[in-house]
Amino acid sequence: MRIARVIGSVVSTVKTETLTGAKLLVVAPLGETHAVEPYVAVDTVGAGRGEVVLVTTGSAARMVEHPSHAPVDATIIAIVDRLETDAWITYIKD
Amino acid sequence: MRIARVIGSVVSTVKTETLTGAKLLVVAPLGETHAVEPYVAVDTVGAGRGEVVLVTTGSAARMVEHPSHAPVDATIIAIVDRLETDAWITYIKD
Amino acid sequence: MRIARVIGSVVSTVKTETLTGAKLLVVAPLGETHAVEPYVAVDTVGAGRGEVVLVTTGSAARMVEHPSHAPVDATIIAIVDRLETDAWITYIKD
Amino acid sequence: MRIARVIGSVVSTVKTETLTGAKLLVVAPLGETHAVEPYVAVDTVGAGRGEVVLVTTGSAARMVEHPSHAPVDATIIAIVDRLETDAWITYIKD
Amino acid sequence: MRIARVIGSVVSTVKTETLTGAKLLVVAPLGETHAVEPYVAVDTVGAGRGEVVLVTTGSAARMVEHPSHAPVDATIIAIVDRLETDAWITYIKD
Repeated sequence: MRIARVIGSVVSTVKTETLTGAKLLVVAPLGETHAVEPYVAVDTVGAGRGEVVLVTTGSAARMVEHPSHAPVDATIIAIVDRLETDAWITYIKD
Repeated sequence: MRIARVIGSVVSTVKTETLTGAKLLVVAPLGETHAVEPYVAVDTVGAGRGEVVLVTTGSAARMVEHPSHAPVDATIIAIVDRLETDAWITYIKD
Repeated sequence: MRIARVIGSVVSTVKTETLTGAKLLVVAPLGETHAVEPYVAVDTVGAGRGEVVLVTTGSAARMVEHPSHAPVDATIIAIVDRLETDAWITYIKD
Repeated sequence: MRIARVIGSVVSTVKTETLTGAKLLVVAPLGETHAVEPYVAVDTVGAGRGEVVLVTTGSAARMVEHPSHAPVDATIIAIVDRLETDAWITYIKD
Repeated sequence: MRIARVIGSVVSTVKTETLTGAKLLVVAPLGETHAVEPYVAVDTVGAGRGEVVLVTTGSAARMVEHPSHAPVDATIIAIVDRLETDAWITYIKD
């Protein structure tokens, strides 16, 4: 799962029908490496802007409570309370 | 889902039969990171050149109204009206 | 789908049985970004060296006429006649 | 499978129900290339901080003893005892 | 399929049961781009150190003779005899 921060949101009127009602958030990698750009994930846990979250990608992104054949490839599955590492980032949610 | 801009189109005569009729657009990442090159996505929402769109990839790209076994790995599933972030790009469709 | 140019071919005697008869071509990204190295794709449309093609990857690569469980993760599904973009590359097949 | 080192852990209270009880570790690539950021994998083999492990990704990450539809895209499947290469890293577990 | 060279091997005692007996080799991209680090692939064709091989990834990696639900995401499916390209690398096995 990717570690990401919620940095914004997306509004879209014209979209695939099975996306209707999905909450689309813009997330960005937490670290300093910029190999991955900001991208959009469906929120299923009530994440808010500024929170650090775990995003699952690929077919796993559809193993959650979406309408069953929604064309989703990235889903927020957890809000991080505490992330503790040796050498990288230590994060504690307020 | 990736955030991308429609930058062009592709014409192909010789192709896999299940691609017949598919509208193939060239899309490019919106941001400044250049880790991902322009690529081709099937349009299913009537996107036009210059518009910002959401592209789903992998097996999710086939969860839309393609002929059922079309060999598609990237599909445009939404046209973005507004994209609002803290630190990155804010985009409003004209 | 990735945009790539056919730059060569591969000969392999010792290989998984289900690959027998598959035409293996070496393809490289068309653009200037070098995030992706040349790789090998199975040709299903009669592509030739120097041609620009569309390559589908992941499970989509098996949605074509391979022996059904061939372990293939990249397949050439179209030969590009014309590729027209704003800011990047415009290509017209001879 | 990716070669990674366990560098930390994650605590999350609000998460998808099927993740309950999963041990979430932060892992980082072993090598010097920084194309991949630290990410989170589910531990299924009792890995500890500092150990070098093999991480499987994509749909393979669900071929282990998770609750069957857990939305997991990275799983630790082996603890490395010895890794021996020509030109890169040689690692022997204490 | 990725083009890679076999550069080493991995020994692991503690691992997922379905990996037992799998031959785990360390492989590295052949080219000069260093976007991809060395990684581990299951060998199914008897590849040896120094040989150039084709590696299939993702769900395709399980379309070979592994125990059926082995959590494998990269498998060596061919030993390259000859690889001939315009601009990149030409390789002939001894």
